[in-house]
Amino acid sequence: MSDYHIFTADGARHFALSHADAFRDSDQLEAKEFGDGNLNLVFRVKNQHGRSLIVKQALPYARCVGESWPLTIDRARIEAEVLLRHGRLCPEHTVQVLHYDPALAAILMEDLGQLEILRSALVAGKQFPLLASQMAQYLAHTLFHTSDFVLNGLQKKAEVARFLNPELCLITEDLFFTDPYCNHERNNIHQAILPQARELWHDDALQAEVARLKADFLSKPQALLHGDVHSGSIFVSATQCKVIDAEFGFYGPIGFDVGSLLGNLLLSYAGQFGLQEDTSVREQQQAYLLEQIATLWQGFASEFSQLMQTQTKESSFASSSYQSFFLQQVLADSIGYAGCELIRRTVGLAHVADLEQIRNEPQQARCERFALALGRQLILQRHELTTIQQLNTLVQHLPLPA
Amino acid sequence: MSDYHIFTADGARHFALSHADAFRDSDQLEAKEFGDGNLNLVFRVKNQHGRSLIVKQALPYARCVGESWPLTIDRARIEAEVLLRHGRLCPEHTVQVLHYDPALAAILMEDLGQLEILRSALVAGKQFPLLASQMAQYLAHTLFHTSDFVLNGLQKKAEVARFLNPELCLITEDLFFTDPYCNHERNNIHQAILPQARELWHDDALQAEVARLKADFLSKPQALLHGDVHSGSIFVSATQCKVIDAEFGFYGPIGFDVGSLLGNLLLSYAGQFGLQEDTSVREQQQAYLLEQIATLWQGFASEFSQLMQTQTKESSFASSSYQSFFLQQVLADSIGYAGCELIRRTVGLAHVADLEQIRNEPQQARCERFALALGRQLILQRHELTTIQQLNTLVQHLPLPA
Repeated sequence: MSDYHIFTADGARHFALSHADAFRDSDQLEAKEFGDGNLNLVFRVKNQHGRSLIVKQALPYARCVGESWPLTIDRARIEAEVLLRHGRLCPEHTVQVLHYDPALAAILMEDLGQLEILRSALVAGKQFPLLASQMAQYLAHTLFHTSDFVLNGLQKKAEVARFLNPELCLITEDLFFTDPYCNHERNNIHQAILPQARELWHDDALQAEVARLKADFLSKPQALLHGDVHSGSIFVSATQCKVIDAEFGFYGPIGFDVGSLLGNLLLSYAGQFGLQEDTSVREQQQAYLLEQIATLWQGFASEFSQLMQTQTKESSFASSSYQSFFLQQVLADSIGYAGCELIRRTVGLAHVADLEQIRNEPQQARCERFALALGRQLILQRHELTTIQQLNTLVQHLPLPA
Repeated sequence: MSDYHIFTADGARHFALSHADAFRDSDQLEAKEFGDGNLNLVFRVKNQHGRSLIVKQALPYARCVGESWPLTIDRARIEAEVLLRHGRLCPEHTVQVLHYDPALAAILMEDLGQLEILRSALVAGKQFPLLASQMAQYLAHTLFHTSDFVLNGLQKKAEVARFLNPELCLITEDLFFTDPYCNHERNNIHQAILPQARELWHDDALQAEVARLKADFLSKPQALLHGDVHSGSIFVSATQCKVIDAEFGFYGPIGFDVGSLLGNLLLSYAGQFGLQEDTSVREQQQAYLLEQIATLWQGFASEFSQLMQTQTKESSFASSSYQSFFLQQVLADSIGYAGCELIRRTVGLAHVADLEQIRNEPQQARCERFALALGRQLILQRHELTTIQQLNTLVQHLPLPA
């Protein structure tokens, strides 16, 4: 910790040069800071041949708020270790970490600038046919291989301790599960949907179900999660798909990672009502999103089942009835967490471009109401929705509120 | 660790003298080793006035097996810290720890020799009217106050890390959940019930449900458990009841502690068919046991509900529907773990006097078959048994097998 200092462009350049085989002492390196948004300092370091890498440094506070919100720089360790671990389990879809410096809380990693951030691309109406099947592979492999199916009790407990990540989990515990369901000052609620937001504060049935999901988030360490699989953490192209930003990683319920992504695809679905005026283009994009949702779950379930059948090391979990039960429970959890994501991105602190970039305010309010109504249905009905088709049917039949 | 040496009687006397206000330098202290059975060295240290204390030292191996089974002496820390923590939460029913020495892995604690060990007393057909209501208080207070209802995410994660207890949990993971359901060399099966034991090895439905219970044991850190609440860990009298031996303590599912005790009361019930030849005496003792089972759950549920309503610090868990759901889930878990306890104590490594002390072998085999059949029913039906009366009705209607 004593060697810690906040990077200037010069420091980032020096850090990249010291730890990257890609750069030579004779290179002319250029380092440019570009905010990743919320928490950290991020530089792109490029040489004269166009070869580039990313330097990401954790600041001892949350960047979006400032020094008044101190935040452990140990999150850089979590991020580096989760990415390295997930990278071994699924190198195709995990950003490559080249070096991690604990004292500087800094990570040198591959630059994915040639890809697009999924959220912006979806807002622009783009489609990526391989997205869901690739993410299904990523989720199945990273989650299965860090679960009780593979690790014995000794290994698992050591892993749980290594990735407790209390400070960043607390952010999720608050923003995801608490704030949207009460009149919290951190909430960010557009005036037009205040009546619908208020309903959440007095919805006993919903709050009881959200409490169950929160209790599992706190006390169900099933696997090493990424912890923040939203569409801003995924880089895509027509052929590739890579996940970044694992600082929220911890041992939690598998459905949280799967559900976060489902929730983000559904946020995109909701936003389409306001982003795309041409009905047939909009319907076509929404059909693509539902198809991706189906493929995501089916691909995940199929790969995870295959792994359970062939790679389970813990004999107690070899029972095929248990494995079916396990997957069914992951689906219910995933649907519940997807519902939470829809709600917290609509009325909580951190909004998403899928809804924010709708220019027509009344139309935006309708989309937000749709997101809230859908989120609520998913949370309440997650145990009845036993197939992904049932979820898609629910989405398709939910009317766009006035 | 460098100061660690195995106590002689002299060492135990010196340890007690150094750390007990009760003893003076001028006292004539006598120290006598008496095995607590399985894992540790235990001395009673007494002065000439009859005042006595217990010195318990962890050996670097499991005493019952010998040096070939190495076992961490960190279990003494776990035991001392769990007892101290539970002792603050429920001093009436937790043995008092006077001193703990990490280097020597030794604990000085109150002597409960004036009380009886519950298991032996039940085998002798004794009754303790306050047992269940006192244990209900112990379980409700120790478990509630170490749960997510009270601790925030930061506190809870620090606690989970402090009490991971991987080595001792592994013993439970193996002996409780794995061995009885396969042909494991550690199993200890009386010849007469071999056919019934074999059935367990091929019972897919049962194995799937045991897998769910094991997965929760591994990955459901709801509260700081005692981890080994069997009737050999409880000292009783007509008015008192105190719990000892917390070295298996860890953050796990609340139902595991409650269910272990339920299972032990049911083992006593099963054993009565063979221990007590006088039918009316036997029926009277079994009625007492069922009444204690009802009181245990009702007392626990009532106290835990009261605590949830009045002492919950985490606002997300203030919902009364959530609290009802939570208790219902604890009941289902408890019934499941009680079923596992019945089975593993009948065919697993560690048997209990309730069944072992039946002299008539054919009668013993019938009692063991009863325990296995009951265990299986509890595990399979735990979600349908939504009240403790339903459990008792099932017990009363289960025929004693031939």
